[in-house]
Amino acid sequence: MAFDRLIENIVKTQNPSVVGLDPKLEYVPDFIVDKRVEKYGKTLKAAAKAIWDFNKAIIDEIHDICPAIKPQAAYYEMYGIEGIKTLYKTISYAKEKGMFVITDGKRNDIGATMTAYATAHLGYTEVCGEQIAAFDSDALTVNGYLGTDGISPLLEQCREYDKGIFVLVKTSNKSSGELQDLELTSGKSVYATMGDMCEKWGGELQGKYGYSGVGAVVGATYPEQLEEMRAALPHTFFLVPGYGAQGGGAAGVSKGFDKNGLGAIVNSSRGVMCAYKKEESCDEHDFAKAARREVIRMKEDIISYLPRIVLPTNE
Amino acid sequence: MAFDRLIENIVKTQNPSVVGLDPKLEYVPDFIVDKRVEKYGKTLKAAAKAIWDFNKAIIDEIHDICPAIKPQAAYYEMYGIEGIKTLYKTISYAKEKGMFVITDGKRNDIGATMTAYATAHLGYTEVCGEQIAAFDSDALTVNGYLGTDGISPLLEQCREYDKGIFVLVKTSNKSSGELQDLELTSGKSVYATMGDMCEKWGGELQGKYGYSGVGAVVGATYPEQLEEMRAALPHTFFLVPGYGAQGGGAAGVSKGFDKNGLGAIVNSSRGVMCAYKKEESCDEHDFAKAARREVIRMKEDIISYLPRIVLPTNE
Repeated sequence: MAFDRLIENIVKTQNPSVVGLDPKLEYVPDFIVDKRVEKYGKTLKAAAKAIWDFNKAIIDEIHDICPAIKPQAAYYEMYGIEGIKTLYKTISYAKEKGMFVITDGKRNDIGATMTAYATAHLGYTEVCGEQIAAFDSDALTVNGYLGTDGISPLLEQCREYDKGIFVLVKTSNKSSGELQDLELTSGKSVYATMGDMCEKWGGELQGKYGYSGVGAVVGATYPEQLEEMRAALPHTFFLVPGYGAQGGGAAGVSKGFDKNGLGAIVNSSRGVMCAYKKEESCDEHDFAKAARREVIRMKEDIISYLPRIVLPTNE
Repeated sequence: MAFDRLIENIVKTQNPSVVGLDPKLEYVPDFIVDKRVEKYGKTLKAAAKAIWDFNKAIIDEIHDICPAIKPQAAYYEMYGIEGIKTLYKTISYAKEKGMFVITDGKRNDIGATMTAYATAHLGYTEVCGEQIAAFDSDALTVNGYLGTDGISPLLEQCREYDKGIFVLVKTSNKSSGELQDLELTSGKSVYATMGDMCEKWGGELQGKYGYSGVGAVVGATYPEQLEEMRAALPHTFFLVPGYGAQGGGAAGVSKGFDKNGLGAIVNSSRGVMCAYKKEESCDEHDFAKAARREVIRMKEDIISYLPRIVLPTNE
C-alpha cells in the first residue's frame, strides 16, 4: 500500500531512475519496423507489434539494472486497439522480469468514474462474480484538479492491492507555471497546495520506509521547486520527469532526494530509447545494448550527487 | 475547427443534451450479459461484447432525437483491450449514425505527449507514410492543469480536422472546490482563471455561430458558477455534466445557455442508460425504448427553461 516495493528495487539496483517507454514508431530501428510492415502492411498492427519488439528487447537488456519502467499511455493509444495490446504486454512482461511498472496516464475524473480508472489500471474488474485484472500496473499517474473525491477511489485500490499513485504537482513543461505557479490568497502557490493535498491523501497509506502510497510528480526542470517540495512533503515520494532531453540535470534532480538517497525516482524516456541514435557509429541492431549503456551512464550521473542509497535504519 | 457541427445537430434535433455512454456491466440487462457469457465465459471479452450490444441498441434508438454521445473512456479501459475495442466500435457507429461524439478522457500531458493524445483521439497516426485514424472522435475532454503547451497540440488537430476540445473548468463533483474555488491573488478563482485560458486558447478557432473549438466543462451542480462563466466566456461552448443522477436540475443548467438557447450541452449518463430500471414495470428487453423515453423527457425538461433553440441570425 505504498512505494515500499519500488524503494526496495531502487536500493537493490542502486539506481533511482526509471525508463519511460514512450515509443513513437520513429524511435524504433528500421530493421524491426520493416519486418513487421512486411508481414502486416503499413498498419497500426504492424506499428504496435514493432513497438512491442522494441520494448521487449529493452526490458530484457535493462531489467537487472533498472528498478522500474514508465509506459506513457498516450503513445500506445496513438496506435489504437493494437497499441493498447502492446501496452498490456509491456506491463505484464516488465512485471514478470521483476520491474515496478508506473503507467503514466494522468487520469482524473469524478469519484464514480475514478473508481473505473482505478479498477482498470490498478485493480480488478468484476464480471459476473469473477475478478479479472484489466491492466494491473503497480502505480498510475493522476491529476488532482478535481480534489479529494477524484482521488479517494484510488486510495482504496492502493490499500487493497499494494499499489501507488503519483499526483501531478509541478510539471516539467515550460508553461506549467501558468496555473501551477499562481499565488493563492493563502500565500501558497497552486502547486504547493496540491503538494499539501498529497501529504493529506497519503496519510493512511504510510509504508515501511517513511513514504506513503501517494507520490507527486515534480519536474527535473524546476530544481528550486523540487527542493521546496522535498522539504515540505516528507512522506511523499517524487516521480521526477524532465531529465535529459527536456533539460533537467543531475545536480538539479538531487534536490528531490532525502539524506538516504531515497524519496525520488528520475525518469528518462527518449534519452534511453534513442541512445543508439546518439552514440557514434552504433549499429541499429545494438539499440538495446545502447539503452543499457545509457541507463548506466544516467545512474552514475545521478548517484554522483547523492550521498548513498540505503533503507532508513530506524524503520 | 469548432463546435459548428455539434451546434447544427442541436438545432436540428432541438435537443441540447448528450447521452453519456458510461456502461458498467451492471447497467446492461441480464438477457444481454447472459448470452455473451454463455458464449465467452465470465471474461472481459464477454463483458465488452455485452456492452457493445447495449450501446448499439441505445444508439439505434436515440440517434434521430439526440445530437451527441459522450463515451467515458474509464468504463472501457476497465474491460481491458476488449473494452477498448467496444469504445472504438461505439465511436464509429455513432458517427455513422450522424451523431457527434465526445470522448470523455480528460487527457493531459506535456506538449510532445499531448500531441500523441491528440493524434490518438482526434487525428491520424502516421505509419511509414500512411495516415491512419486510431479512435477518430469529434471532440475530447482535457485537463488544463499543465497550461498552454499541454493544450496547443490539440488546437492544431482541431484546426486541421474540424475537431473540438472541452477543458475542465468547474467540475460537477462535491470536492471540485478544494482547488478550483480557491482565490488567487489576482482576485479570481482558479476555475475562472482556467475559463479565461479557454477563451484565449479558442481565439484562433472561432466558428460560424460565435463559439470556438475550445469548450469548457462546467458542472450542472453549480448553477451560480455556470451563470458566472456563461457571462465571462462568450465564445466558449459548455459541456455540462451532473444533470439528474448527480443532482443538477433543468432550472440550474439553463444558466449555461445564451439567448438563442445555444452555448451548452447537458449530459446525462445513468439516467438514460438505466431508465428501464427506474420505469415502473418496464421489461428489460425494452431498455433501449426506455432510454429513448428518458432522452425525450430530459429534452422537454431542459428546453422548458430555454426561450428557443436557433442559430444566431447575424452569422
